[in-house]
Amino acid sequence: MANTTESSNPNLSNDEWCTEINNGAAFGLKIKKKLATKQSDFQLVEIYETEEFGNLMMLDGCTMVSTRENFLYHEMMSHPALFTHKNPKNVVIIGGGDCGTLKEVLRHPNVETVHQIDIDKVVTEMSELYFPELCESNDDPRAIIKFDDGIKFMAEAKDNSIDIIIVDSTDPVGPGEGLFNHAFYRNCLRALRSDGIFVQQSESPLLHLPLLKEMRDAMLDVGFSDLQHVNFPQMIYPSGWWSSTLAKKSGAFEEFRKEDADKAALQWQLNYYNSDIHVGATALPNFLKRAFV
Amino acid sequence: MANTTESSNPNLSNDEWCTEINNGAAFGLKIKKKLATKQSDFQLVEIYETEEFGNLMMLDGCTMVSTRENFLYHEMMSHPALFTHKNPKNVVIIGGGDCGTLKEVLRHPNVETVHQIDIDKVVTEMSELYFPELCESNDDPRAIIKFDDGIKFMAEAKDNSIDIIIVDSTDPVGPGEGLFNHAFYRNCLRALRSDGIFVQQSESPLLHLPLLKEMRDAMLDVGFSDLQHVNFPQMIYPSGWWSSTLAKKSGAFEEFRKEDADKAALQWQLNYYNSDIHVGATALPNFLKRAFV
Repeated sequence: MANTTESSNPNLSNDEWCTEINNGAAFGLKIKKKLATKQSDFQLVEIYETEEFGNLMMLDGCTMVSTRENFLYHEMMSHPALFTHKNPKNVVIIGGGDCGTLKEVLRHPNVETVHQIDIDKVVTEMSELYFPELCESNDDPRAIIKFDDGIKFMAEAKDNSIDIIIVDSTDPVGPGEGLFNHAFYRNCLRALRSDGIFVQQSESPLLHLPLLKEMRDAMLDVGFSDLQHVNFPQMIYPSGWWSSTLAKKSGAFEEFRKEDADKAALQWQLNYYNSDIHVGATALPNFLKRAFV
Repeated sequence: MANTTESSNPNLSNDEWCTEINNGAAFGLKIKKKLATKQSDFQLVEIYETEEFGNLMMLDGCTMVSTRENFLYHEMMSHPALFTHKNPKNVVIIGGGDCGTLKEVLRHPNVETVHQIDIDKVVTEMSELYFPELCESNDDPRAIIKFDDGIKFMAEAKDNSIDIIIVDSTDPVGPGEGLFNHAFYRNCLRALRSDGIFVQQSESPLLHLPLLKEMRDAMLDVGFSDLQHVNFPQMIYPSGWWSSTLAKKSGAFEEFRKEDADKAALQWQLNYYNSDIHVGATALPNFLKRAFV
């Protein structure tokens, strides 16, 4: 707060701030100018240049991606699962249209194919223009980028054909709604190989605990054998504290490939993830321990 | 974002929101009504009832404490240091006028005295009225609550007389300014016993890295022998991601009292802290590892 504190209750007027309101809390970034707007078939996609955070993508009025701090989300949606699986070869990303998760997954040399299935082509087009650093692996021959319905894709996926499924979606309203229910989870479970891992962004532990518990219950209901909660900071999402939930098709979460993780963290010059962060992110605060019983 | 998302760029009008702006980012809580305002000799103290976060204290326009999520800050400013020290008997809190850190420190049965030195009596008076749950240990006979200048208090403190000093202050502007410099650190070092630990809130790793590095350099300059960085979520502070820095008078940070920590986490029904959280909070993201070299 050192340098830029202003008086109490500043007025965040419409043309200077991009603000998202959630659960009685507001988060906004100060903008220099709007760079692009497009109403796609699915949502309103807006791109702004901010004062301090590089570019910002908003989807239907929700802050989605900023240049400065997206590394937290993208590293933490990918590497914990990929370093937990012994040998992930075939990965599917549902959503993820900004291509940041895809880029992180493609860093893994054992990965042979990554399908990215986002319903909205406009998100990827905008990302290529305004977040080119997230799209720099889009031409990797292992990447198969499709613009299609992720629910349909998983319903049609072959049994026992995928090692890791990452649901990198918007919230359970609008286009992302069908990615948070029993029918979808059942298809994901069926399509995973026996040592497969399902990953879903699972909202704010502080603000969205009922939803988080509902997701966990649904995953266990359809037959996932074990869950692992992963915490990480994410400044532009409500509360600044976000999570993913990992679910195993069979067996329990035990060790991860610690040495590989640390070698990779150095070699790939990751900004956040390393093996200590992996262990730390899976530590459960007491209020979550009590809630997850 | 599920239930309360509004359209892009809502106007956060003055009378409905308490908002703090920092580094081109704004965070606000929706308020029901203002409960109290007082201009003290040092700062403007305001109390609001919020829609979703209980009561909120603002100091000079900065969000300081909310009922719903202050547990994160207060547990993490106290327990990591107190469970690292082998037998903390004499603790000093500089600042901390809301008494939340004091309450956590007083949970420790080995603690014999806790001096709380906050310059502003109004903060504590307001906390007693509007955050009574933070003040419920103020009458503990081990607590010595003084309203005085923390810089002077530390300048006058006896050599080798304190086990843990916790600087639970506002930011390095206004009343908190003199708590972030060599002269103050030198007095803290001198007043600590040889196995003593100094703790300071050290701002957002994401937003305030230059300041964080400056603080660390100053601590090492005056002769602290080892530092430990501690991360935790703190929704109402800029970026939602906050930190404390621990500094040892001699020796290096090694083990902490893990078993005691886990027993206490259960017995005291802590909401966040336990031994896994302790380990996780001290894990350094790669960008901090690189910055702290």
